[in-house]
Amino acid sequence: MGNSFGRAFTVTTFGESHGPALGVVIDGCPPRLPLAAADVQRDLDRRRPGQSSLTSPRREPDHVEILSGVSDDGLTLGTPIAMMVRSVDARSKDYGDVETRYRPSHADFTYDAKYGIRAIAGGGRASARETVGRVAAGVVARAVLAPLGVDVIAWVDEVAGIAAAVDAEGDGVTRDDIEATPVRCPDGVAAALMIERIERARKDGDSVGGVVRCACRGVPAGWGQPVFDKLDAELARAMLSIPAVKGFEVGSGFAGTRLTGSEHNDRFVRGDDGAIRTTTNRSGGIQGGISNGMALTMRVAFKPTATIMRAQDTVDRDGNAAVLEPRGRHDPCVLPRAVPIVEAMALLTLADAYLRHRAQVG
Amino acid sequence: MGNSFGRAFTVTTFGESHGPALGVVIDGCPPRLPLAAADVQRDLDRRRPGQSSLTSPRREPDHVEILSGVSDDGLTLGTPIAMMVRSVDARSKDYGDVETRYRPSHADFTYDAKYGIRAIAGGGRASARETVGRVAAGVVARAVLAPLGVDVIAWVDEVAGIAAAVDAEGDGVTRDDIEATPVRCPDGVAAALMIERIERARKDGDSVGGVVRCACRGVPAGWGQPVFDKLDAELARAMLSIPAVKGFEVGSGFAGTRLTGSEHNDRFVRGDDGAIRTTTNRSGGIQGGISNGMALTMRVAFKPTATIMRAQDTVDRDGNAAVLEPRGRHDPCVLPRAVPIVEAMALLTLADAYLRHRAQVG
Amino acid sequence: MGNSFGRAFTVTTFGESHGPALGVVIDGCPPRLPLAAADVQRDLDRRRPGQSSLTSPRREPDHVEILSGVSDDGLTLGTPIAMMVRSVDARSKDYGDVETRYRPSHADFTYDAKYGIRAIAGGGRASARETVGRVAAGVVARAVLAPLGVDVIAWVDEVAGIAAAVDAEGDGVTRDDIEATPVRCPDGVAAALMIERIERARKDGDSVGGVVRCACRGVPAGWGQPVFDKLDAELARAMLSIPAVKGFEVGSGFAGTRLTGSEHNDRFVRGDDGAIRTTTNRSGGIQGGISNGMALTMRVAFKPTATIMRAQDTVDRDGNAAVLEPRGRHDPCVLPRAVPIVEAMALLTLADAYLRHRAQVG
Amino acid sequence: MGNSFGRAFTVTTFGESHGPALGVVIDGCPPRLPLAAADVQRDLDRRRPGQSSLTSPRREPDHVEILSGVSDDGLTLGTPIAMMVRSVDARSKDYGDVETRYRPSHADFTYDAKYGIRAIAGGGRASARETVGRVAAGVVARAVLAPLGVDVIAWVDEVAGIAAAVDAEGDGVTRDDIEATPVRCPDGVAAALMIERIERARKDGDSVGGVVRCACRGVPAGWGQPVFDKLDAELARAMLSIPAVKGFEVGSGFAGTRLTGSEHNDRFVRGDDGAIRTTTNRSGGIQGGISNGMALTMRVAFKPTATIMRAQDTVDRDGNAAVLEPRGRHDPCVLPRAVPIVEAMALLTLADAYLRHRAQVG
Repeated sequence: MGNSFGRAFTVTTFGESHGPALGVVIDGCPPRLPLAAADVQRDLDRRRPGQSSLTSPRREPDHVEILSGVSDDGLTLGTPIAMMVRSVDARSKDYGDVETRYRPSHADFTYDAKYGIRAIAGGGRASARETVGRVAAGVVARAVLAPLGVDVIAWVDEVAGIAAAVDAEGDGVTRDDIEATPVRCPDGVAAALMIERIERARKDGDSVGGVVRCACRGVPAGWGQPVFDKLDAELARAMLSIPAVKGFEVGSGFAGTRLTGSEHNDRFVRGDDGAIRTTTNRSGGIQGGISNGMALTMRVAFKPTATIMRAQDTVDRDGNAAVLEPRGRHDPCVLPRAVPIVEAMALLTLADAYLRHRAQVG
Repeated sequence: MGNSFGRAFTVTTFGESHGPALGVVIDGCPPRLPLAAADVQRDLDRRRPGQSSLTSPRREPDHVEILSGVSDDGLTLGTPIAMMVRSVDARSKDYGDVETRYRPSHADFTYDAKYGIRAIAGGGRASARETVGRVAAGVVARAVLAPLGVDVIAWVDEVAGIAAAVDAEGDGVTRDDIEATPVRCPDGVAAALMIERIERARKDGDSVGGVVRCACRGVPAGWGQPVFDKLDAELARAMLSIPAVKGFEVGSGFAGTRLTGSEHNDRFVRGDDGAIRTTTNRSGGIQGGISNGMALTMRVAFKPTATIMRAQDTVDRDGNAAVLEPRGRHDPCVLPRAVPIVEAMALLTLADAYLRHRAQVG
Repeated sequence: MGNSFGRAFTVTTFGESHGPALGVVIDGCPPRLPLAAADVQRDLDRRRPGQSSLTSPRREPDHVEILSGVSDDGLTLGTPIAMMVRSVDARSKDYGDVETRYRPSHADFTYDAKYGIRAIAGGGRASARETVGRVAAGVVARAVLAPLGVDVIAWVDEVAGIAAAVDAEGDGVTRDDIEATPVRCPDGVAAALMIERIERARKDGDSVGGVVRCACRGVPAGWGQPVFDKLDAELARAMLSIPAVKGFEVGSGFAGTRLTGSEHNDRFVRGDDGAIRTTTNRSGGIQGGISNGMALTMRVAFKPTATIMRAQDTVDRDGNAAVLEPRGRHDPCVLPRAVPIVEAMALLTLADAYLRHRAQVG
Repeated sequence: MGNSFGRAFTVTTFGESHGPALGVVIDGCPPRLPLAAADVQRDLDRRRPGQSSLTSPRREPDHVEILSGVSDDGLTLGTPIAMMVRSVDARSKDYGDVETRYRPSHADFTYDAKYGIRAIAGGGRASARETVGRVAAGVVARAVLAPLGVDVIAWVDEVAGIAAAVDAEGDGVTRDDIEATPVRCPDGVAAALMIERIERARKDGDSVGGVVRCACRGVPAGWGQPVFDKLDAELARAMLSIPAVKGFEVGSGFAGTRLTGSEHNDRFVRGDDGAIRTTTNRSGGIQGGISNGMALTMRVAFKPTATIMRAQDTVDRDGNAAVLEPRGRHDPCVLPRAVPIVEAMALLTLADAYLRHRAQVG
């Protein structure tokens, strides 16, 4: 259960980290949109480990194949789009300790507690590798949204407390600015410090966390459902469903709780184009759960990677004290690779909101 | 759309703020649980305005009636439980300006943008009055969970930056401690400062925000679905669906992003009772989206109330500049009344997680 | 569970037969459609017992109240529409035997087996009274569909084997023709025989069954989802969810299984208006689960009423042999009252199919 | 949309008939159940064309691969189970006429009307090949249900009006009896006549329809949801979602409408084992939408195959009159191959009902 996302644009992922394949099925995609495997591959490559010295050197070529839902001439059919990535070099054998000793702050223990069984190699479904399917689906969502002028962009805003000086809406920030550094932070000065901090963590056999910012520009007013399926509630769920995420803020977030109402309220004005807009955007583009035509702005907190290259005290399956010895390789900071995942989840949320809005209001 | 919450324990609310009635239908509640209207009334009374000088003096007696789903001798039947509160004194007439001038940081504009129509009196569905149904449903969820030893408790942790000195799990905090002050903060010293700050905001015709903490104790290991419906993702959605919420943290949250992995990881040990537990709880009781047997801990950010007693610049429906004059009464701080709503949303999330877990795993 | 119908136009009913109230909540209704309580009342009156000597003389005034979702000037708001009917004269007391002795072919035993508890008075949720909410919701669905030219009509096609001579699409049949006789059969000759047969069953203390036909005219080509949510699959589920229904046919149905493919296939031609249509309609207006622009045609089988005025052998709750003595009043034939219920379920199915189609295809 | 089935045991199929692959993802399967690809293959082989002279000689080896959700030692993990069958010999080219001329009583026209695009080769999603995923999922459902003693069996009951003499519950009928003839009818005399009739249809370039019966034995009392998700309503939807199905009956079905209530009612008695049962089973094992402990019995009507080896009048995409010339090969009767599909859909429905029951009632 719980492997699907979205009510109208519905995404279901499958696959264990080291199983035969990982993939995704997208149901509800509008017909006649152009979709090529190469487009999907481009985003998967951004998610992949081994892109720079900042990320795990594991080799996951992640070659995507479209199995259904696209016509011979590259248009969506309106039928389910299935995509798959074969696992390469999936050696179950070398996971020694992990089989019996619970890795701290990983999901080994909770999967065992829930199911009484778990895919040990590579963390199974709890691995960040599960997000391959999400990123692939995000490309389809972008194909739905791009013709409407919706553009979703995310970047690394903080690493271990080192913060970028970029505004919430990412004004003037381009995708190239973000891709310019391996840490995916468009503020070059902060980026350099972040990279240094991550390298230090690697040398220490330790890890660091941080914050990803995301801005969704061009979202028209009126999307999102009020009450339980508020657009920001759906975004919160989307982001917290990403491995290692511990917090979410929309608009002014936690800092906004320290303002007064007179400071916080966003004043309405008529823009030069005649459209109603607000002079500030502490609402983060959403009021009452519905988009107001301003950019959606949010921040997503990632904890430091749980895998570290140090011996750690833990227990084994029987509850006996044990020591987990470090082995293999690790990602001292997931933030750079999290950027395309955050974008994908925002895209999936918006595509679903768009189709649901269209269902009720036309 | 979007007025239902939960897949197995499904809650649907209805009603406009000043319409004939507000209510809720709960589908999927297990049979043979005791449920009395008086139990529901008790929680509704905690949510109600006019409880103290801190909250709006509006009179909403909110008398609840159970319409279905409960036997003559007070047991749930397994059929839908419908509950309703009649509106009293619903005068649509005195909403003058609001009809044509958009209140800043309210949902007037976005409802109009979405639906092309809106219930003007009292804010319609966007009013906090909609949460009457949620709080009533929360009482039913508590009836499901209490026999399992699950106890959900929330309190005001911050008002305008004034923070309580209470730990995340609320160790030693009782419901009585929380109810001891009108601000629902169990730290008496902080509570006094908070009250003073709220009173000042009232005098200024202004408003303040803050943070509610919530701890769910007694949740067994194994609840929650991995991947998209992670228990913390569902909680995030639940909390962000509450009016005025702008942020959510589980466990270490945003602060945790500044720790290293070696500092952040929760070590497993065997407890005196033989159960596996962790020595710290930065995970907030959830790993990989599944409960680990520790208390679930979270923080929920509320922006300052959008309604203030000051003239504000805005536009009218046609986009013309206008001034919104203050009128009526306002709640200078929603935090005290938000406490039972946060509890209700946590209870609804857990009841659903419990039933879904039972479906798959038995 | 299981008290909701529809994914985009979602209907949830609540209420036990003799409980305080029965009702319905409709979520997802498009905004700005005219809806008046009087429109709803008209259809409820068609469903009500006591309309003629053919139906139970029980008095259920079924006065409907709209609780939410409609503006002061009678337009839908896009928010949940809740409607309620108070029970009148709900005497729980006079259900003696039924409390302990299982009525044959009723749901007393299965509710007990499932829930370990049941609302004894009036059959609880298993009562046909539950359909009050469906019929009320059907009026809302009609408000969605009528502007598109969709018209749903049902009539009694068979009673105890006495068949009407009316074609499947109900060509030339008006609602007035149907309402002209208390048995709601537009073929006057058959109607007279049916009435006689029903009166005889009443005198015998027995009951009879029959078949309702339904035609949905004006449905554009393209509605319905292929694969699991085929339009005819959704209609089948809708109809089988009505109490006492034992069978469903679309188009040629069971009789079509005796034709050859060359006899059965519907030939395409271009109509005078340029639209593609078929010369015959054995497909019942649906091919591959999607409407083809022809009228949807279906038949729904109702078993004879389980309540009869005769002593019947049965067992009590403990499994001991017992005799159930007849008491009270009964409906010797549910067919006439089933007509508005069948129409309502078809309308709900089509409104949902329309909104879902709009979500994906625009 | 519409490519998923089930709420707790959720099955999503994907794939076009002649696309790269067909497959299925099953979410919600309980953990620790044995599942081997060979088990799945066995049922797929029963569904496959080319098993006998009665079915199409097309070669679809349908070799299944399990992509996820099963541990190295063959146990379900509780995570999504994805399975895939690669298309072999998928030549898009030889579909000449079909590209532009609508095949009568096929879904070519309606897919075009809905999506404005369609996978032409092999009928795309509307092909019976889509059911590969259903049959594979049915094997997983059987793994869930078999330990409970639930056994689902289907057989051909009628071909072109030639009826088998087998009772509704299939008493004494084994799977071997059914597999004994290529027509999958356990009554040898009727089977011979059916085979002769099908062979004649083939020689005529024509096709015939028929009826499949299905009995679900060992279903405990209490499964199924009342009101909209009645167990028989879900079964009806399941069966009508199979290509070519035009009708569904449970228990006494259409014939039961000609009985009186006193003839039709099922008397309760205590069985020798102390359990309450009924002396007859006109209810088809379901009362008020909930199983009563008797065998579930149903009949499913299949129209004659739409593909025939005769020239047929039709129109092309532009609405111009055209003749569709026969080409390729056809299945003169789908009934034998429909048997495993009907079983699969019944199994999927029951597995979902079981898990949903467990969610609410434990």
